[in-house]
Amino acid sequence: MVDIATRVWNHKWKIDPIVRSLIDNDFYKLLMCQSVFRNKSDATVTFSLINRSKDIRTADLIDEGELREQLDHIRSLSLTRGESTFLRGNTFYGKRQMFRPDFMEWFDNLRLPDYHLEKRDGQYELTFEGKWHEVMLWEIPALAVLMELRGRAVLHDMRRFELQVLYARAMTKLWQKIEHLREVPDLRIADFGTRRRHSYLWQDWCVQAMHEGLGDKFVGTSNCLIAMKRDIEAIGTNAHELPMVYAALAPDDDALARAPYQVLSDWQEEHDGNLRIILPDTYGTEGFLKNAPDWLAGWTGIRIDSGDPATAAEVAIKWWQDRGEDPRRKLIIFSDGLDVQKIVELQSQFAGRAKISFGWGTLLTNDFRGLTEHDALAPFSLVCKAIKADGYPTVKLSDNPNKAMGPMDQIDRYKRVFGVGEQKRMEVIV
Amino acid sequence: MVDIATRVWNHKWKIDPIVRSLIDNDFYKLLMCQSVFRNKSDATVTFSLINRSKDIRTADLIDEGELREQLDHIRSLSLTRGESTFLRGNTFYGKRQMFRPDFMEWFDNLRLPDYHLEKRDGQYELTFEGKWHEVMLWEIPALAVLMELRGRAVLHDMRRFELQVLYARAMTKLWQKIEHLREVPDLRIADFGTRRRHSYLWQDWCVQAMHEGLGDKFVGTSNCLIAMKRDIEAIGTNAHELPMVYAALAPDDDALARAPYQVLSDWQEEHDGNLRIILPDTYGTEGFLKNAPDWLAGWTGIRIDSGDPATAAEVAIKWWQDRGEDPRRKLIIFSDGLDVQKIVELQSQFAGRAKISFGWGTLLTNDFRGLTEHDALAPFSLVCKAIKADGYPTVKLSDNPNKAMGPMDQIDRYKRVFGVGEQKRMEVIV
Repeated sequence: MVDIATRVWNHKWKIDPIVRSLIDNDFYKLLMCQSVFRNKSDATVTFSLINRSKDIRTADLIDEGELREQLDHIRSLSLTRGESTFLRGNTFYGKRQMFRPDFMEWFDNLRLPDYHLEKRDGQYELTFEGKWHEVMLWEIPALAVLMELRGRAVLHDMRRFELQVLYARAMTKLWQKIEHLREVPDLRIADFGTRRRHSYLWQDWCVQAMHEGLGDKFVGTSNCLIAMKRDIEAIGTNAHELPMVYAALAPDDDALARAPYQVLSDWQEEHDGNLRIILPDTYGTEGFLKNAPDWLAGWTGIRIDSGDPATAAEVAIKWWQDRGEDPRRKLIIFSDGLDVQKIVELQSQFAGRAKISFGWGTLLTNDFRGLTEHDALAPFSLVCKAIKADGYPTVKLSDNPNKAMGPMDQIDRYKRVFGVGEQKRMEVIV
Repeated sequence: MVDIATRVWNHKWKIDPIVRSLIDNDFYKLLMCQSVFRNKSDATVTFSLINRSKDIRTADLIDEGELREQLDHIRSLSLTRGESTFLRGNTFYGKRQMFRPDFMEWFDNLRLPDYHLEKRDGQYELTFEGKWHEVMLWEIPALAVLMELRGRAVLHDMRRFELQVLYARAMTKLWQKIEHLREVPDLRIADFGTRRRHSYLWQDWCVQAMHEGLGDKFVGTSNCLIAMKRDIEAIGTNAHELPMVYAALAPDDDALARAPYQVLSDWQEEHDGNLRIILPDTYGTEGFLKNAPDWLAGWTGIRIDSGDPATAAEVAIKWWQDRGEDPRRKLIIFSDGLDVQKIVELQSQFAGRAKISFGWGTLLTNDFRGLTEHDALAPFSLVCKAIKADGYPTVKLSDNPNKAMGPMDQIDRYKRVFGVGEQKRMEVIV
């Protein structure tokens, strides 16, 4: 029986919104947002969408009107009473009131600032400029909108059973991975796939399938809304934008060299336990660890997000040993370009030598490779990065020069300041 | 939004009925039913369920109470106004009023007769005794109920996403077959899979997927209800039960030898065109064709349902040539144990030499092989056959001795009467 009212209501929607909540966002964006809100509330930052996959011509694939409608819809969102209650009342990482009253009061009244959109060379140039703690919340929704609109463009001409089979194949593919992962002893794995997901509904499916299929091996999702709706742990740590902006704001080379540690010092004031995770690769992992203050070795763990993950993990283990720490009590979180084979390899290589955890991103929530003609739904390498802070360009070196960004002269300066030598180029899959 | 009334209504169902309509049945059963109603309305026949796969212990897998509830539900069904209108008003094989008013009047008032159910050696013994034209309509629903209840028993302990992935895998598997078949030039293929389908909903999905995926290459379904609901052509011809019962009723060996031809003579009075399809293998294809009257060579085609299909098709082609007919104007319908590979082979072997068509059964609507642990959902070889007519046992020889049935002494007698020599045993898959 058709519920007539529901049907009529559904047809009244002008668009099918991709992002329907301000907390359909990575949990670590909220953690970082609070940190920025408290420590750098004056900084003006520009975020910009960057498509590393130049062959995917987003401006040809996606209608500008539709894109604007989706972005405008996001600007109309504000925190709902239930979402606010969840953030205020929930226990995150064993701690109540993770989000402080002054931050929540600000967040309750937040609407996202305006965006700037242009087309150039078949690509959209999408930028967000404003207070850092406001524009930073655009990153994930902007990426999710671009990725899902591109998907919708491809799905548009598919027929009914063709569509159902497409999703059946995607489900089958993911489940096969889950069945494989189920056999990995002591696995701990989380969803980190919001930013480049195929779609919201698909991410929601993937998270639930992981939850049922992996049981205790599945430790949570980075998506705050899905965590709330599915009663799953919300997890996350911190990202490159913190050192990148701190570094850009540094007045001289000395301050620049200290900036990445200043980030963690600010962070340490706010968070303990599993939130004290070092992200060492922004300006080269090796130099970062070598020059790190001793207190950093006391942190809970490290997240490895570029370069060869096994090499980086060995570097971290060695570093802990050198600093008199027992690596077996430390957590290594792998989060770069993971898929099952790599996860299994890394787990077997490092199990017993450290605590191991995986943040599985794009190839969890968007592995539509091989499922359509011309691979039109394969994920591509879209990022949204802070490119300027108070007028100064930001720089990222990473452990993989293919992930580096910033003006050439600044890259050279950063390399010099952080003592980064020759780096190995690695293909960026997603 | 939940439609509360719908939800409450759904929870009022005592059971989830497997067969919900009297025309959820093979179309050819209705054609044969009308023929029997007109020609043999006095005959009393017993149908019996026979499980050729002894290792599947149906009585251990299926609860007797549930089985009785399903069978009792079928006995409560009668033709709805819409179904009656469809049968009276529709064009079948280009002909209106395929079902005559006297037959429809009887059918409008029909309720299926009682059944007899016992357990023996881990198997259900399920028999139906009564007027031939009444009990014959039990065959398909009885098979569908047993097959689906066995499936439900297996599905019962599966979790939510596990179930969804199971069906995703089944969809993926079928779609791969469809994509393969789509490339076969001049293919003509139909669904013949009601009797051993995984479930009604699954057959309905398969038919629609074939319809979308194969376009004009998909020529119809044998399931009358699905044909009506999905606006697809209902198709079918005739089955072994006609010669088997005619033969059992024959008073002596001469009459026995004539019985298979008498069937087709009665059939010819009623039907022309694509309904004049010879089913030659009941007592051996070779002898049947050799001894056939000349008028039979004028029929439209032949259905090949046992033995090696290529061999049987060659025999038929040779026979037509010997009788001065052009095989290229004749239709050969393959319907035994088909799957994609065999279909592709047969099509390429006989294309251009005759018109070719395929009736795809169990491996269309129930190919759950390899999709569960211990292959617990793989289809098995369940049949429901006329075993007695007016007290005399029926006999089937077939072109494959593994499909033969009847008392040994009668099998010997039939082999003598029909001149059947050595036969090649072939595995019965489904």
